[in-house]
This record gives sequence, C-alpha cells and structure tokens, in this order.
Amino acid sequence: MRVLLVGAGGVGTAITRIAARRSFLDHLVVADYDLSRAEAAVAALGDRKDRFSAARVDASDEAAVVALLTEHRCDVLLNATDPRFVMPLFQAALAAGVHYLDMAMSLSHPHPERPYEVCGVKLGDDQFARADAWAEAGKLALVGMGVEPGLSDVFARYAADELFDEIEEVGIRDGANLTVEGYDFAPSFSIWTTIEECLNPPVVYEADRGWYTTEPFSEPEVFDFPEGIGPVECVNVEHEEVLLVPRWVDAKRVTFKYGLGDDFIGKLKTLHALGLDRTAPVTVATDLGPARVSPRDVVAAALPDPATLGERMHGKTCAGTWVKGTKDGRPREVYLYHVVDNQWSMREYGSQAVVWQTAINPVAALELLAAGAWTGKGVLGPEAFPPRPFLDLLVEYGSPWGLREQ
Amino acid sequence: MRVLLVGAGGVGTAITRIAARRSFLDHLVVADYDLSRAEAAVAALGDRKDRFSAARVDASDEAAVVALLTEHRCDVLLNATDPRFVMPLFQAALAAGVHYLDMAMSLSHPHPERPYEVCGVKLGDDQFARADAWAEAGKLALVGMGVEPGLSDVFARYAADELFDEIEEVGIRDGANLTVEGYDFAPSFSIWTTIEECLNPPVVYEADRGWYTTEPFSEPEVFDFPEGIGPVECVNVEHEEVLLVPRWVDAKRVTFKYGLGDDFIGKLKTLHALGLDRTAPVTVATDLGPARVSPRDVVAAALPDPATLGERMHGKTCAGTWVKGTKDGRPREVYLYHVVDNQWSMREYGSQAVVWQTAINPVAALELLAAGAWTGKGVLGPEAFPPRPFLDLLVEYGSPWGLREQ
Repeated sequence: MRVLLVGAGGVGTAITRIAARRSFLDHLVVADYDLSRAEAAVAALGDRKDRFSAARVDASDEAAVVALLTEHRCDVLLNATDPRFVMPLFQAALAAGVHYLDMAMSLSHPHPERPYEVCGVKLGDDQFARADAWAEAGKLALVGMGVEPGLSDVFARYAADELFDEIEEVGIRDGANLTVEGYDFAPSFSIWTTIEECLNPPVVYEADRGWYTTEPFSEPEVFDFPEGIGPVECVNVEHEEVLLVPRWVDAKRVTFKYGLGDDFIGKLKTLHALGLDRTAPVTVATDLGPARVSPRDVVAAALPDPATLGERMHGKTCAGTWVKGTKDGRPREVYLYHVVDNQWSMREYGSQAVVWQTAINPVAALELLAAGAWTGKGVLGPEAFPPRPFLDLLVEYGSPWGLREQ
Repeated sequence: MRVLLVGAGGVGTAITRIAARRSFLDHLVVADYDLSRAEAAVAALGDRKDRFSAARVDASDEAAVVALLTEHRCDVLLNATDPRFVMPLFQAALAAGVHYLDMAMSLSHPHPERPYEVCGVKLGDDQFARADAWAEAGKLALVGMGVEPGLSDVFARYAADELFDEIEEVGIRDGANLTVEGYDFAPSFSIWTTIEECLNPPVVYEADRGWYTTEPFSEPEVFDFPEGIGPVECVNVEHEEVLLVPRWVDAKRVTFKYGLGDDFIGKLKTLHALGLDRTAPVTVATDLGPARVSPRDVVAAALPDPATLGERMHGKTCAGTWVKGTKDGRPREVYLYHVVDNQWSMREYGSQAVVWQTAINPVAALELLAAGAWTGKGVLGPEAFPPRPFLDLLVEYGSPWGLREQ
C-alpha cells in the first residue's frame, strides 16, 4: 500500500513512527505546508526511514494534492491536518481516485436563530452529502478514524454486535489525569480546537427526536475512569461520534462527554465571558502598528505548545465508550476503553500520550484495508466495519483495550 | 491657568466636562493618541467649549509633549493616560518647566526572588527618585491626585489633623454595587489597570516593619459600605495610598482593600493562569502579517470600553478611608467616604460613576493650585496639602463626602 499522509504535526509524526514498525506499507509520503516539519518526521525514523519520503504541500490546494497523489502512485490519502482542511483533501482524494481517511469530520455551523436547541450544518454533513459520488467511484472515504472519533465508534459497534441485545445509550467518555511539570495550566491538546469543541453547541442524538443541540457544558456528570485516573467531571461536547454511531448502530440515545474537570470548565467559561474565545478579530496595538487580531489566536499563543510538552507531562489519558442496555433480558452496563500512559508512549515512540493515542488508529485501519479485512466504498464511519479484527490488531500493536462491567 | 490634559478616555473626557463649569481655567488642550477622541471630548462640551481645544500626541514621545506644552504656553500637565505613560509625561513636564498632576504613580516591579514577601521597585519610586530635580526647578509634581489615590489620601490627612490623636490603622476601602445591563461581565473600570493592581503583589505598611508585600488577594474581609451598597468582600491590592500616606501621616499600619467580589477575583485568577495578564508580547497572525501583541491589550480590546457603558450601568460606587485610633484617650473608628450614584453622574455630566468620581479630584486640585490655596514644589502626594479647602470644594462642586462613626 502506498500512502500520502498530509500533516506532519504531532499526530502526523506519531503516525510515521507507528507505521514504520509495520510491514504492510510499501511507501508513505509525509507532506506538510512546512517542508522542514515533514523532513524532520522522516529523519526521526532513523534506520526505519527507507519506505518514507517528505514533500511540501498546501492542504487547501486541491490540484496540488491531486498532483502529489498521482506522482507518487498513492492508493490512499491519510489526512492528519486540522479540520479546516477536511473538505479540500476529501475532494482531492476523490478527484485522484484514491481512498481517503481522516480523524475529524467537516465542520459544523450553528443554527442561526436557535443554536442551543436545533442543529444547523452538522459535523460531517458536507462529507455525507457526497457519499453517492464516492460509492459510484468505487472508492472508500473512511471518516473519523482516530481515537475519538474512531476507536470509540469501533467500541460502539462491538458492543452492539457482541455484548447487547438492545442499547439504551452509547456515551463516549473521555478523561485524563495528565499534568505538566512547571506549569499551573498547560492543556495537553490544541486549545484552539478545545475551545471550538467545547463552546460550539453540543449535539445529542435520541432515536425518537433525532439530532438536537444543548447549551455548552450541559448535563455535567462525574465519570470514574479506569487504571487509576479516577473520577472526573464530564460535560456534553460537540463530537463526531454522536453523528456517526446512529447511522450504523441501533441505540436510543448517543452522547459525547468530555472529562474537562471543574477547573478547565471554569477557565473556558471565563474565556467565553471575556470574549476571548472569539475568532472575529479586534484591533490592538502591535509592533507593526494597530492590527486586527483574533483573540482565540492570542490565547493559543500565550500558552505553551502542547506538542512540545511530552517530556514534562505525567499521567494517563483514557478514551472509551460507555454502553447501557440489556443482554439476555437483563440490564447491562459496560465501559470499553483504551488508556495510554504518557511515560510509556514517550519512551516507546517519543510521542506524547494524546497524539500517540490518536495516531495508532488510522495506521491499524490502513493495515486492515491493505489486508482486505476491511473493505467498503462510499463515505463510511468506523462502525460500518467488523470491529473484532481492529480490536485484535490493537493488542498485536502492544496497546490493548479494556472492558469494565459497571 | 492653562492646562495640557493628556488622555481623552473616560476619565479625561469627564475632566473636560467638570472643568468646563469652573471659571479658574483659561485654556485646556485635550491631547490623545487618537485625535478623534480628543475632538469628540471637546465637541461634547457644546456651548461651554470655548476655552478648550484638541490635539494629537503620543504620550510616550517626551519631545512631542514638551513641544505641545510650549506651543500652548501651558502652566501644568494633567496626565489622564494609563500608568505606562507616567514616566515620559512626568519627565516632559519637568523638561518644559511646568507643574504636573497624575492619578496613578510610576509602576512597580516585583522583587525578583521573594515577590510576595518583600518589595522590589515600589509604586512611585521612579518619581520620588527625581524629587530633588523638581524641588530645584521650583515646580510641583502632585502625584496620585484622583479619587484613590487622591481623595482617599486627603481623607487620611484630614483624620490625622482633626479626628485623631493617634492612628493605629489607615485602611482604604473601595466597593460598589454597580451592574451593567446586557452583559454577563463588563468591568466598570479599565481592565488593564485592574489587572495591574490586582495581580501585582499587594503592599502593606507597618511602622515597625516598613513596606512589605503579600500574596495577591490576601486578608479577605467583608466591609459594609454606606448608602445602600452594603457588605462586599474586599482583599489586599497594590495601591498608591499605602506608599503615599506614611510619608506625611503618622500611622502604625496602612492598607488598601478592594471590594472585588468572588466572581471578579476568579476571572482575574484565570487570566493569570492562562498568561493573559502579561504585557510581554507574543507573536500572532494579524491582518498585517505575524506581529508582536501584548496579551493584556487583547483582553482590554475584547471587552466593552467601560467609558461607553454608563447608560447601561446601575448602582453606586464608594471610595473611602477607614481610620482606627484614639481621640482624647478614647478608641475611635471612622469611615470617611465619597459615593457617586451612576444615575446622577450620567444625568448631570454624561459620565459613568467610576470615571466621574476619579475626574472630579484633579479638577478640584487644579482649582486650589490656581487660587494659591494649595502651593508646593517637589514631588508631593495629596496628603502633603491642607485637606479642608479640598473637602469644602467637593461640597461646592455638588458632590459631598461623608463621615460614619463606626
């Protein structure tokens, strides 16, 4: 299999390190807007770098991406950029006649009048609108194939296939106990994206009501995470699983709650109250004279870059799917989960836990597609495929998952 | 008297409105970095604008300020800018050979190793270091002549002169019950200055220990403010009175506590944790390309301008000086205070209560200097002058002060 990986940030770099240890790959081109980042990712592979090369590309330039896919005779485009580039890369893959994978879906737009009640444009809507074209082309766009969305969706399908007869609720629950030495406050993930996720209207699915939205930070609950992480306050957040799971899994309700913790929720609320979450620019004095600046960009710039914090980070991150329903006429409740210890991921791969946990999943999916264990065409989510081979492959990769009966 | 007023923000604009009703003034030039603000301040005076003119000036450009003072044959420079411009304006006045008034003193710098125990460079240190040059020039720099510092210092001197034989503690206490319609959060005073005051190490004076610092928000107490404002949680804050009062008034202890309330304290703590209180610039994308921006400037720019909120504001603000000691061998405790009702200041002057309350004091001080009731040379605080004429003048201006025996 020949792959074009677009994006050599934290997740893209971790993808090269995981893929380099697997034999299914014939060649992988790492392309980034900043060529030196792509070259650094390849160079860091050391004596495993034979099947890798670096290139420069502007992810928003569809024609340039098509040319790169053709030049390198790629079978698949793996998108590891931020969600703003989903649509041009998704379109470029279709135009070039190759398969496509991403880890986040096309962006939502809130309902103009009733943002906290009804959906506007939903996450992934722009991609699903083009499903017929992909099916006709006989190509697969496997969307939302990171850890969340991604592994969390595989867990939901696994629960439906093997653990439950009827499902009342699928609730993705994400939590961590990561701390960063030397910082009172240092998010382990892009603050720009975290603000986007947390301050957009959260989406909820109910079988008799369809998709609808709520106020930010709604339905707080304390969820007890496994492997020593413990109880963390979780709240509703806009996330792809809520849009993906109901398309392939029969569940009365689907939610996503993010374990932000009291302190982080308080900080996000303060940013919102002060108008510092906004992307619309304000005018301020700069060294170049009065200029227009997005407050959210300043918030990101004032914090340390999370990709550089791996060495100072301690603790574990947990992604998982809580499912409630019945099996053989009896109530059942399970939490299917995947935990990564930062110390382990830093030692084994030189990647911090959160980006490494995202990166392993698209590599495993590519391996199943290369082997023919997963096949499909059209625009499909991770829950459209048989879950067992994927979960077994994680174990083979040395990163097992867990099941807790509640 | 001919005056150069630098700064046509909320306080500067209120100064023009108050001064326009007094006859001691021959001419006042309002100068601002943004000429349109200065012109707007003058235009708003209507048929009282004869003795006023507008100019553009960069307050950090000493030579330009000297030129403006000379061109308009000014007797005095009144500084109504933020504290960053204290030193260039103070120096420009000395260079031009004119008197100088401000409402905040030169900035402090925390002790590099033990910021929350000992003082580094204190508020006003840079100004007092030049006291000899002012005295030799025969000119007066009257520093800290707003409401707090300013009127609060006059109250301290009045207490020492007329109400007490011995003073145990002078405690400035500031509180309000102002709310702003339509905003979850809208500070009624410059957020830039509020951050500076509240996140710097608070300074305390004790006669047997001298000046020392504490942790931010230390020694919380609930103080009961008069005229219906009621109890408000107050905490130690860095403020000029603590540096000024002990130079002229004999007191065993001097403190300043600000009635911030829980919610505001929480927001300030968050800004600090996120590094958004910093003035040191970060690099961000702007419409002019990557530029250096001070995060604190962005916080200020993202909030509504407090000077524009008067119409939506309700409630009263109180500034005052609590004094504890003995008189004729008996314990005594008084609170000397000044309250402004926003509805009144908006109706009478079109200025919101907090900026109006600041602005009245330098105008009254100028009037006493013009009349020769106050005279002096060198760098002096408000408590260096006889307090009675000042307190009587406030009554004449229609804004009386109060005394509460505790």
